[in-house]
Amino acid sequence: MTFLSDIEIAQQTEMAPIKNIAEKLGLAEEDYDLYGKYKAKLNIYQLDKMQAQPNGKLILVTAITPTPAGEGKTTTSVGLADGLTRLGEKAMLALREPSLGPVFGMKGGAAGGGYAQVVPMEDINLHFTGDFHAIGAANNLLAALLDNHIHHGNALGIDSRRVTWKRAVDMNDRQLRHIVSGLQGKVNGVPREDGFEITVASEIMAILCLANNMTDLKEKLKQIIVGYNYESQPVTAGDLKAEGSMAALLKEAIHPNLVQTLEQTPALVHGGPFANIAHGCNSVLATKTALKYADYVVTEAGFGGDLGAEKFIDIKCREANLTPDAVVLVATIRALKMHGGVAKTDLATENTAAVEAGLPNLEKHLANMQNVFGLPVVVAINQFPTDTPAELEVVKTACQKYGVDVAVSEVWEKGGAGGVELAQKVIELAKQPNNFQFAYELTDSIEEKLNKLVQKVYGGKQAQFTSAARFEMKELERLGFGHYPICVAKTQYSFSDNPTLIGAPSDFDVTIRNLKVSAGAGFIVALTGTIMTMPGLPKVPAAERIAVDENGNVSGLF
Amino acid sequence: MTFLSDIEIAQQTEMAPIKNIAEKLGLAEEDYDLYGKYKAKLNIYQLDKMQAQPNGKLILVTAITPTPAGEGKTTTSVGLADGLTRLGEKAMLALREPSLGPVFGMKGGAAGGGYAQVVPMEDINLHFTGDFHAIGAANNLLAALLDNHIHHGNALGIDSRRVTWKRAVDMNDRQLRHIVSGLQGKVNGVPREDGFEITVASEIMAILCLANNMTDLKEKLKQIIVGYNYESQPVTAGDLKAEGSMAALLKEAIHPNLVQTLEQTPALVHGGPFANIAHGCNSVLATKTALKYADYVVTEAGFGGDLGAEKFIDIKCREANLTPDAVVLVATIRALKMHGGVAKTDLATENTAAVEAGLPNLEKHLANMQNVFGLPVVVAINQFPTDTPAELEVVKTACQKYGVDVAVSEVWEKGGAGGVELAQKVIELAKQPNNFQFAYELTDSIEEKLNKLVQKVYGGKQAQFTSAARFEMKELERLGFGHYPICVAKTQYSFSDNPTLIGAPSDFDVTIRNLKVSAGAGFIVALTGTIMTMPGLPKVPAAERIAVDENGNVSGLF
Repeated sequence: MTFLSDIEIAQQTEMAPIKNIAEKLGLAEEDYDLYGKYKAKLNIYQLDKMQAQPNGKLILVTAITPTPAGEGKTTTSVGLADGLTRLGEKAMLALREPSLGPVFGMKGGAAGGGYAQVVPMEDINLHFTGDFHAIGAANNLLAALLDNHIHHGNALGIDSRRVTWKRAVDMNDRQLRHIVSGLQGKVNGVPREDGFEITVASEIMAILCLANNMTDLKEKLKQIIVGYNYESQPVTAGDLKAEGSMAALLKEAIHPNLVQTLEQTPALVHGGPFANIAHGCNSVLATKTALKYADYVVTEAGFGGDLGAEKFIDIKCREANLTPDAVVLVATIRALKMHGGVAKTDLATENTAAVEAGLPNLEKHLANMQNVFGLPVVVAINQFPTDTPAELEVVKTACQKYGVDVAVSEVWEKGGAGGVELAQKVIELAKQPNNFQFAYELTDSIEEKLNKLVQKVYGGKQAQFTSAARFEMKELERLGFGHYPICVAKTQYSFSDNPTLIGAPSDFDVTIRNLKVSAGAGFIVALTGTIMTMPGLPKVPAAERIAVDENGNVSGLF
Repeated sequence: MTFLSDIEIAQQTEMAPIKNIAEKLGLAEEDYDLYGKYKAKLNIYQLDKMQAQPNGKLILVTAITPTPAGEGKTTTSVGLADGLTRLGEKAMLALREPSLGPVFGMKGGAAGGGYAQVVPMEDINLHFTGDFHAIGAANNLLAALLDNHIHHGNALGIDSRRVTWKRAVDMNDRQLRHIVSGLQGKVNGVPREDGFEITVASEIMAILCLANNMTDLKEKLKQIIVGYNYESQPVTAGDLKAEGSMAALLKEAIHPNLVQTLEQTPALVHGGPFANIAHGCNSVLATKTALKYADYVVTEAGFGGDLGAEKFIDIKCREANLTPDAVVLVATIRALKMHGGVAKTDLATENTAAVEAGLPNLEKHLANMQNVFGLPVVVAINQFPTDTPAELEVVKTACQKYGVDVAVSEVWEKGGAGGVELAQKVIELAKQPNNFQFAYELTDSIEEKLNKLVQKVYGGKQAQFTSAARFEMKELERLGFGHYPICVAKTQYSFSDNPTLIGAPSDFDVTIRNLKVSAGAGFIVALTGTIMTMPGLPKVPAAERIAVDENGNVSGLF
């Protein structure tokens, strides 16, 4: 059996004109703008007329702790939505937009896979509707205004050694991580250490994803801290009078993008902040919009449940006043085996003992969803061809023991047909009452919040602070940011801050190396290690095989 | 009398849905893609079916040598097209896209002015359909691939001191002109001197504007020289296997953008390369497309006739096999007075002697169009409220003497109604036979080409070469680029290379300081001075006054 690549499957499938999808949703012509025949932007200013409409059910797709074997959250989300559609439900997706940079590196596309994809796949993976470029432009306008201010006399007294705002580009470009800018004399700026992040790491990405409307967006932009003055007071985008022109640059990007799955289920694909230094979810506006137009909204959060789901709940749901109705926890036999100690090269061999040994990771994530966040949860096993019946049985038996339902998802191979079982279970699950709650309260101190996360969500002992982190904690409290939620920037490969502690470690501390406020986005980032905000390209980048023919058809995206 | 700002006029005017404009042009639904309700991209792959269609007349709008008083080429072009439409002609514009960066600096928008604008003005001035971001991304992908290659072992032996490819951002950001990148150790690239240009200065912008189709685009991208190896041989984008992914990034940007004037005349606004280090014209594909759909295509070229018109002819028309049918030379009384020696602060006072004294500049441009390029020409006086009848009479009398027709254009104040006189004269002019020719032949040596430009077009004595330029000239001939056309990067404020020599100087040499090949775009850039390819922001940037309200309406663009 030969497999088609994702882009081949995507290009073989006939899409519906997005106009038809919009009409099926009940959108009027003034409610959306076409971007070509298969993409549209929903006008947020038309949302008001939907206020009376009840919200659909919100289904969060999260996963066990990631391993190099892969989990398939997006693929499962897409297949689940298609499964719901096959059952006659009005379902809709709310997903993140892929970043352009990594497309040219190793990973290729990020719009699902196999027969569970959102399309047009090549557009979604390339510039899409320009949102990320708009965010990059707003980011870089702020940077230019900042350095221009210093250049023209520095009336605000900005300490150029304490500029925290970086420039952004949507490219994997390690060469720009650390630079010295402003060189070659008086007319060419003021020399200082500087650097670039990939656009998804920009605070503006997080802001766009957390904004409830244009006024809120502007207010958040205004509060961005770009650095500190010589009196150690923060200097904001508002001080530079930058928020108006930044918001003007984002006037289209704020509208959620409408596309479709291969089976023509409507999908809002909008925003995509990092899941470490930011909260890793699609935009609040897209989620809220989808809830007005569909009975089931399937959304996902980055990385595993300890990072993605936790931030989805403690940051996004809190900010936007959303309540999830059910959680799907994606697991793969392969990943469980890796948590059970098997090397990546040995995953094809049946090994029920290793699956068994990997189960504690699954169990801890399930317990978090149920006990910490009070949400009903179902396990979705994203099936691979190498999975054996005996291995699947291990997971099923365990889930029975945990009192949690489990569904085998075959959406990669079969599309929505492979997601019907999961969809049925999700429908039942979402009917259950839930005791939704946060992992911590905003009124907790920064230290209390972090300890609650470490103890309740990660299963560790406590948060340890470096002296730098402790100093910064006091500073942030002094500056009035103590009531912000916490965004932990931590390895995604472990519940702990040590990527080698796979499975379900316990008896560990989490070291908070430093803290940083994203005052515009409205959270405090707790850095537990060095977080790379600008990826590099591999020795043989995917860019070398990507091509476009004389009629504009793209190939080489995976 | 109070004047409305450009954006106020633009926002007061009701636009036609661009779908209607497309239908009026005879476009079928598969011929274009909507980008919102008022922008569209024409599909170049649909152009083939128009091959049998005869071309319309091509009208080039150029200007006398620019002064700080302004000329109004775009405004005149828009008003002329509207004037032609009022006369019942099927007219269309082919204009450049404005760059985003300068919008936040001093100049604000660049989509015409007053009642002669292309709309939606705020979209055209902000991201428009994303072309410039796509060009920037392709530019920066190439840069990332280049540094990544050096980082991973440098198999091509690229001399990092001789990397000529810069990164790009569509922002006025002087801080990025000169940087050192790749700092902080082995995993973060290889330290080297580096820098950014504004996106419009990227060679990819010039390439996109000169490409005849997708295959041609890829071929041109492949030939871009990114630097030199230790054997002083050029290293190309093709050597880095970059052209396929770069072309994939440009797959939408290659399609011309359709918008409209305030009077609903169709306008293709596409591409916008620098007019000094590049050729300063809208895309070949837009011009060719417009010629298939309209009987009169009004296009413009950057700066004055010595730079813009010359490059339009010697580079763009030659590359694309186009023949202009008539030239409109835009002049203002104010600019003529400045060429006659009046200071900018004294322009409001009637001064016929100064107008008279400024005429030689007009006369030289007219002679160039007629004698060097063999094209029929008409003078358009872009009228300002301060112009007096006596001053206008000076120009009219002079033009009679030169044997050239003249029309007073009042399009800024009156829109198309103010352009009818000019339109009538253009219609007559385009019926005249012309003896179209280039200023030099491709078979001329580089030195001969430059001497012909200096002597025939600029009215000087000869081109002088620095030793660096002479060395580089030999190098370029050795590398096989001797047959390329020349793109002179020269001050726009004088026929000479000295910006203070206004009017029509003679008896001057032009010093060629260095030469540089744009091997992908297909021309040799002759640098006569320091050309700034990254602007800065002023002390009080326009960004501070640009805003967007809670419904997404932009203000503060001029």
